[in-house]
Amino acid sequence: MKTDIQIAQEAEMKHIKEVAVQAGISEDELEFYGKYKAKLSDELWNRIKDNEDGKLVLVTAINPTPAGEGKTTTSVGLGQAFAKLGKKAMIALREPSLGPCFGIKGGAAGGGYAQVVPMEDLNLHFTGDFHAITSANNLLAAMLDNHIQQGNTLGIDPRQVVWKRCVDMNDRVLRNIVVGLGRKTDGMVREDHFVITVASEIMAILCLADDLADLKRRLGRIIVAYNFKGEPVTADDLQATGAMAALLKDAIKPNLIQTLEHTPALVHGGPFANIAHGCNSVRATKMALKLSDITVTEAGFGADLGAEKFFDIKCRMAGLKPDAVVLVATVRALKYNGGVAKADLAEENLDALAKGIVNLEKHIENIQKYGVPVIVTLNSFVTDTDAENAFIEKFCRERGCEFALSEVWEKGGEGGVDLAQKVLETLETKESDFHTLYNDELSLKDKIRTIAQEIYGAHDVVYEPAAEKQLAKIESMGFGSFPICMAKNQYSLSDDATKLGRPENFDIHIREVYVSAGAGFVVALTGAVMTMPGLPKVPAANGIDVTDDGKITGLF
Amino acid sequence: MKTDIQIAQEAEMKHIKEVAVQAGISEDELEFYGKYKAKLSDELWNRIKDNEDGKLVLVTAINPTPAGEGKTTTSVGLGQAFAKLGKKAMIALREPSLGPCFGIKGGAAGGGYAQVVPMEDLNLHFTGDFHAITSANNLLAAMLDNHIQQGNTLGIDPRQVVWKRCVDMNDRVLRNIVVGLGRKTDGMVREDHFVITVASEIMAILCLADDLADLKRRLGRIIVAYNFKGEPVTADDLQATGAMAALLKDAIKPNLIQTLEHTPALVHGGPFANIAHGCNSVRATKMALKLSDITVTEAGFGADLGAEKFFDIKCRMAGLKPDAVVLVATVRALKYNGGVAKADLAEENLDALAKGIVNLEKHIENIQKYGVPVIVTLNSFVTDTDAENAFIEKFCRERGCEFALSEVWEKGGEGGVDLAQKVLETLETKESDFHTLYNDELSLKDKIRTIAQEIYGAHDVVYEPAAEKQLAKIESMGFGSFPICMAKNQYSLSDDATKLGRPENFDIHIREVYVSAGAGFVVALTGAVMTMPGLPKVPAANGIDVTDDGKITGLF
Repeated sequence: MKTDIQIAQEAEMKHIKEVAVQAGISEDELEFYGKYKAKLSDELWNRIKDNEDGKLVLVTAINPTPAGEGKTTTSVGLGQAFAKLGKKAMIALREPSLGPCFGIKGGAAGGGYAQVVPMEDLNLHFTGDFHAITSANNLLAAMLDNHIQQGNTLGIDPRQVVWKRCVDMNDRVLRNIVVGLGRKTDGMVREDHFVITVASEIMAILCLADDLADLKRRLGRIIVAYNFKGEPVTADDLQATGAMAALLKDAIKPNLIQTLEHTPALVHGGPFANIAHGCNSVRATKMALKLSDITVTEAGFGADLGAEKFFDIKCRMAGLKPDAVVLVATVRALKYNGGVAKADLAEENLDALAKGIVNLEKHIENIQKYGVPVIVTLNSFVTDTDAENAFIEKFCRERGCEFALSEVWEKGGEGGVDLAQKVLETLETKESDFHTLYNDELSLKDKIRTIAQEIYGAHDVVYEPAAEKQLAKIESMGFGSFPICMAKNQYSLSDDATKLGRPENFDIHIREVYVSAGAGFVVALTGAVMTMPGLPKVPAANGIDVTDDGKITGLF
Repeated sequence: MKTDIQIAQEAEMKHIKEVAVQAGISEDELEFYGKYKAKLSDELWNRIKDNEDGKLVLVTAINPTPAGEGKTTTSVGLGQAFAKLGKKAMIALREPSLGPCFGIKGGAAGGGYAQVVPMEDLNLHFTGDFHAITSANNLLAAMLDNHIQQGNTLGIDPRQVVWKRCVDMNDRVLRNIVVGLGRKTDGMVREDHFVITVASEIMAILCLADDLADLKRRLGRIIVAYNFKGEPVTADDLQATGAMAALLKDAIKPNLIQTLEHTPALVHGGPFANIAHGCNSVRATKMALKLSDITVTEAGFGADLGAEKFFDIKCRMAGLKPDAVVLVATVRALKYNGGVAKADLAEENLDALAKGIVNLEKHIENIQKYGVPVIVTLNSFVTDTDAENAFIEKFCRERGCEFALSEVWEKGGEGGVDLAQKVLETLETKESDFHTLYNDELSLKDKIRTIAQEIYGAHDVVYEPAAEKQLAKIESMGFGSFPICMAKNQYSLSDDATKLGRPENFDIHIREVYVSAGAGFVVALTGAVMTMPGLPKVPAANGIDVTDDGKITGLF
């Protein structure tokens, strides 16, 4: 069987200007990065901004399992399938992070015959967006420590610096460090931390900003530290906003690439799905809506985190109205939720399926709470049986959902035609009555309780004393109207990763709360969240190479 | 008077494909980065590699002073002037570092009407080469610490890790840090250091590598640490070479931009001029030689460091044969060398000039030792007097040098026509008899003494005991045949920055010696060398901004 990178490298790509022209974009409106990547210019946006929006379809999934679900693969395959049906579709995805490519996870360009290409470029530097974010993040950090060094007129308390440096690399030894050692000219000694670039608030800001002006407003509001009086110190206070924005002026422009079948794909931004909202950029999504009849987008992790944040953070802030949701599951993952061990997932097991399907059921109910029609799709594996597929289809139909098998991994767009037709039927026959889960006016605690009870199915929310204090301070600073960004493990609807299926009678435990004032949300953390991954014993990097004539091998 | 950025932004740039076509490069051989930047493909190299080489002209300078010399400005202006004379010229320059743009120094794209454009792009992310180097550097660091964490089968001594992390930012608090704090899973605690990206050995390697295969060989040889037995541990030992090379596969391709007058300029690589060799890439220089009749290149700092390393490191390794050297001075800098304070440099002072001109004299003598003809040029300032100019011209002619005034800052190429004509006369009438200063076979100490005595004019070399030990170890490891890369202050021919003019009766003090096994040279440090700059009290970043429609302001 061919690997993803083999399939990708054998693909005959079109010059990106041809892909653009088919999408109604002229060559003049592109900024090329080689032959197969381009940024979309501000001139393009100015030309199309009054076009009517196309339909918006979110691809999300049940809670992830080690069996794999294939959200990105489904998104890419669905986009390809719409093209097969003669529809003008565009795919809007997140950019992958560089660090994990060298660790365990590998890249993120879809899989099999449902990939976006060039996959090597996408997984390595791409158009430099993440490097720009890293630079802006670290410029702000350098200016902050330099301010402390050069007299500290803002009275920054070195014990209350909340801005962290970042690097787009899995580097565990940078999680907790001490900086400023040496002589007087080498800075003030303090504890510091690095996060991976996708966990930088600047990543979230770039993805939520409407345009450069909005980007600057958001950058300026970033809280970098508190002064000795306990008051927030911002990027504006450090006079860092303009220089950061200058570093980000091209990164805010969406990137156009193509699928293996030349469907246009806007791949732009990639905020963490725990301490941030896990969606591609607003700018890219809005451009796709103006340029196509159907935009297919996705959100990180399962629907309890990804779809919830897509609706309650991204759609709320950007005024987006999703028309349908494709909910991805696999027979294997549902059996895993029903208690089958990973090694035994290949065997037919209708009892386990019946036990595990409650996870799918809860996600269907959740999405219906937002008023958006749901289409369930099974990402097919060769070991799935007809009886298993039939059981799931019946289950979905009883709950008012369309259902379709998807074979896009193996067959590309052709394998997604059934799904695409079901989505089209839904778009034509079912009206979306989208509304967010909660209103801005609710208190932060009420918002957290609403998410915990309505989406996770929790009994109640329990706060650590520190979290209670932080909530009070955040409301007193005037951020009470912000939406909540929940940081929770992705494997369970609860905050206990071992509780699979549809857990009941559990509480959600809030350990820490802080405000991302630039992004515009309040982060509520349940348990410990890792913002800097490590490398495994045998990193993927050991197997990556490049031939003397420039062909990458070993990337997956 | 207009600022450099105003002049640059008012320029009517040509699409880079037009500039390329005039230089004999087809559109297919370019990889575009927007409309005004392109990388030159390997296919281009394969087509031109058997072309005859054009002439190679190095632009270097007297020891730098606070008065400013204008080496890059002269290089750009000279390239423009050749074009005015109908010659096919190409300019090969270094890329500027991002960090200093936010500090004091500002960018590095030339000045006035002798600039390369787009200057904002060049000074910010450009085509991402430095970000790729940062990533490769930090991947190696992460893999090293991960190896220690995951069992340390190579027996790496955490006290003898020599590989440092890097960031392209002026960030003093990262000079000396402690990493790996926290729990067992957060790594092994050890002291660590960040350098600025241009000080990474990977930068030097990228600039010295012939091609991707040579790049990989050099990366693999990098010594990252010593084991508990004191033996070197390399990037190859960590199996990091392939992944690093994959990150650098595009960075090794030269970048094409244009001057304000559309002269093609290859701007590629930018290693530190102290702990590295301070020249643009071999790859770019060789491409320029194949594509043009005359290639104008430059090297960092004054000729005692820049030209010496250009000759003894870059030309030695790459087999380059320079045909002429343009030595840049200013009336103001020579008076400063003669003891005039910075505030008084505007006044005519022939006595001070006569006293300070010995600095120029020594550099002329030095370059003549390499057998290369010298043309001295004065980068004109409005305060220079005819008497001062005449004095310098006579001085140069008496020493067998051509002489020309240069007014390229004010007039662009037109202001460099006199100089260009003098260079052309030299190329036509004087044969270069280029040879390096010393042979590979000399011992490391003999090489250091040769540089110190012949180029700096020192009496002798004095070693710290640690440096003696290090030299012995480096020779025992088999690196005795490497050339020397001197790290010395740039302001004086001696290792004492206050000794201006042409100091005599001084010793050179070698504090530390280490090998850059991948770059292929032995670094000898005189005094403390700063590899991570800091920001000033009021950083340039405070004044940098971008308008809502994407125009950068405040960059200089």
